[in-house]
Amino acid sequence: MQEHDVLCRAYARLLIREGVNLQPGQRLVLTCPVERADFARLCAEEAYAAGCAEVLLRWEDDQISRLKYLYAADAVFDRVNPWDALLPDTLSAEGAAWLAVHAEDPAHLKGVDPARIRRASAASGAALAAFRKRETHNEFPWCVCSVPTAAWARTVFPDLDEDAAMERLWTEIFRACRVTGGDAVPAWRAHSETLHRRVEALNRYVFRTLHYRNALGTDLTVELPEGHYWAGGAEKCLTSGLDFSANIPTEEVFTLPKRDGVNGVVAASRPLSLNGNIVEGLRLTLQNGKITDICAAQGAEIVRAATETDEGASCFGEVALVPSRSPISESGVLFYNTLFDENAACHFAFGDAYPCIHGAEEMSAEELLARGANSSVIHVDFMVGTPDLSIVGTTAAGETIPVFTDGNFAF
Amino acid sequence: MQEHDVLCRAYARLLIREGVNLQPGQRLVLTCPVERADFARLCAEEAYAAGCAEVLLRWEDDQISRLKYLYAADAVFDRVNPWDALLPDTLSAEGAAWLAVHAEDPAHLKGVDPARIRRASAASGAALAAFRKRETHNEFPWCVCSVPTAAWARTVFPDLDEDAAMERLWTEIFRACRVTGGDAVPAWRAHSETLHRRVEALNRYVFRTLHYRNALGTDLTVELPEGHYWAGGAEKCLTSGLDFSANIPTEEVFTLPKRDGVNGVVAASRPLSLNGNIVEGLRLTLQNGKITDICAAQGAEIVRAATETDEGASCFGEVALVPSRSPISESGVLFYNTLFDENAACHFAFGDAYPCIHGAEEMSAEELLARGANSSVIHVDFMVGTPDLSIVGTTAAGETIPVFTDGNFAF
Repeated sequence: MQEHDVLCRAYARLLIREGVNLQPGQRLVLTCPVERADFARLCAEEAYAAGCAEVLLRWEDDQISRLKYLYAADAVFDRVNPWDALLPDTLSAEGAAWLAVHAEDPAHLKGVDPARIRRASAASGAALAAFRKRETHNEFPWCVCSVPTAAWARTVFPDLDEDAAMERLWTEIFRACRVTGGDAVPAWRAHSETLHRRVEALNRYVFRTLHYRNALGTDLTVELPEGHYWAGGAEKCLTSGLDFSANIPTEEVFTLPKRDGVNGVVAASRPLSLNGNIVEGLRLTLQNGKITDICAAQGAEIVRAATETDEGASCFGEVALVPSRSPISESGVLFYNTLFDENAACHFAFGDAYPCIHGAEEMSAEELLARGANSSVIHVDFMVGTPDLSIVGTTAAGETIPVFTDGNFAF
Repeated sequence: MQEHDVLCRAYARLLIREGVNLQPGQRLVLTCPVERADFARLCAEEAYAAGCAEVLLRWEDDQISRLKYLYAADAVFDRVNPWDALLPDTLSAEGAAWLAVHAEDPAHLKGVDPARIRRASAASGAALAAFRKRETHNEFPWCVCSVPTAAWARTVFPDLDEDAAMERLWTEIFRACRVTGGDAVPAWRAHSETLHRRVEALNRYVFRTLHYRNALGTDLTVELPEGHYWAGGAEKCLTSGLDFSANIPTEEVFTLPKRDGVNGVVAASRPLSLNGNIVEGLRLTLQNGKITDICAAQGAEIVRAATETDEGASCFGEVALVPSRSPISESGVLFYNTLFDENAACHFAFGDAYPCIHGAEEMSAEELLARGANSSVIHVDFMVGTPDLSIVGTTAAGETIPVFTDGNFAF
């Protein structure tokens, strides 16, 4: 138990120091499930130790949330309470740090009307547009991380009793985040440098298209917009110029697809936890960037409702490369949590694009859209990587380059 | 454990049905320590079962709060974040119900600079003035209740292990609230009627002054303002006309003193939990309503800081009568929690007055002050009742009537 406390402390410190890279005098918004108040307190301690001006808690509870979706008055799902918009708006404008401890029961919204989820998501997207834009453009430092909760651990390790499942999930999280006791910062920085080297290699090729194929039936061509770049590892906050790590853990390098340039069929390689529901055996068909067909063994209606949220919800917004040989992938664990599962395999997201286009911060929303960057209030990652995945890139000059062979980087 | 669940459910239902008397379509604000999320979920379930439009959680955590008082930037204590003011302001104006599950570690702010507590309290008083006024005038239904937390239970029962202390505290709470399993509403209503009968008896006398005396050294004369009335038990919401119970449990009947009409010495008969600190052996001297001297065996500086919050903080705002023969008093337990301790003994409060003056809702703040109703952003109850307490009332006609003899009502 003492060893566990040491690791938790090291993880909390990593999140504050490298995740949001908190500076003296800065405020911190911390979202956390009430069930993990112990970890929130550790993060608050580390934040104040780093000179935080004020730690503001936004507590979450899956069960209260489920009760609301089931029983609240219908009008509730078309609005956001003004105080819930004022906080993110004010704090993102002042450049406060944002640490999200994300750990939900993957099935906590099972049985809820998908239309209520879609409407709430649309209302939230509209009310939080300024906040989301600042987040997307890295105008403030933010970091998403996870800690075990009982319901989540039970879903991931259904054969273990609750204590054992919690312990195992902690172990997997510490491993994925390179937290081994003592100071976790140097190992994390070394890992971030590895991701930077992959980014540089990809950026040298300047691919025009990527062609995905595997035995699951994926046969998809993805066009990349002119001026796109790949990103991954620590990023720079646009306003302060300081590094931060938006995801801990992370294994991905990513860019955006041209919103109307995705064609073919893509099969999800892992179940997807979406809006408190589990989607299995997902298969999407795309024509000129639009999702035109959605099949799934379970949960197709949840995906359908999500893609109907707004205009951009049915187009892709992210292309991410993750090798099969990464700690999360090699653990063989299915986490039912995007932060982990997206880092176990190559993935796409439908919905909003991170504007990985040179000069994006100077462009209007219209210019970005014209350049091919998708826009939506949703952003849903789903995994497509398999051990036999091949990706072939084509450059502007028409040269074809193997990018992935047998599920790993070819270079 | 099953029996326990039944009692918890009955208590939650009592709070929703009789405490705030929630109506279909009404919103509910629920404050609760994160540690008691289980009880918050029960209350939310009961609220939705009663037709609640939306349950809004305001989670609290003593440890996060302590970290803030110890380490946050100094400027934080002179302001209230605008979203924290917008929520109570908006919801009190619309007549939402307000249920506060209050259960703090009585010593969680020990060692914190009292000036920070006083400044935060003043800032909060100013920012929430409209909300507090609506609360004081019963313009929306509100209810304060308590459930055990580990730190609180350990303080109350230091000789028991944590599980036993928690169980014992639950037992005391259920007993004080007349929750015995099944529907708790009828027993609570019967108790409320008993309090109404005491109120009627006191109101018939129209006392001019009350004279308190006991062997602890209390010798205090309290003038009551012209047009005052006594209250207790269920109250009426001014806007809806519906009954609600502002405290569950409650044993008191109360009115307000004339703010400049309190003279003598009063000794607290129990320790007082104030702003996360414990005050022992408190003794106050008053002249023409003003506290002119503060002595205590422990924590005098905490009381001094509180009385310096604003002009009215050093005058009395409440006179409350509680017989020695009441369940909380007879339990012999010292709860270090005002909701219980104030209902174990006669008490006063320094700070803001509940405007128990006929026609108060039509009066301006200035008129109320001129009539003798004290005004402050604080309201601190402290216990003075003892088994030998005598209170003698004097009517306008000069007749003296025994009100309390040997710690109990004389009539």
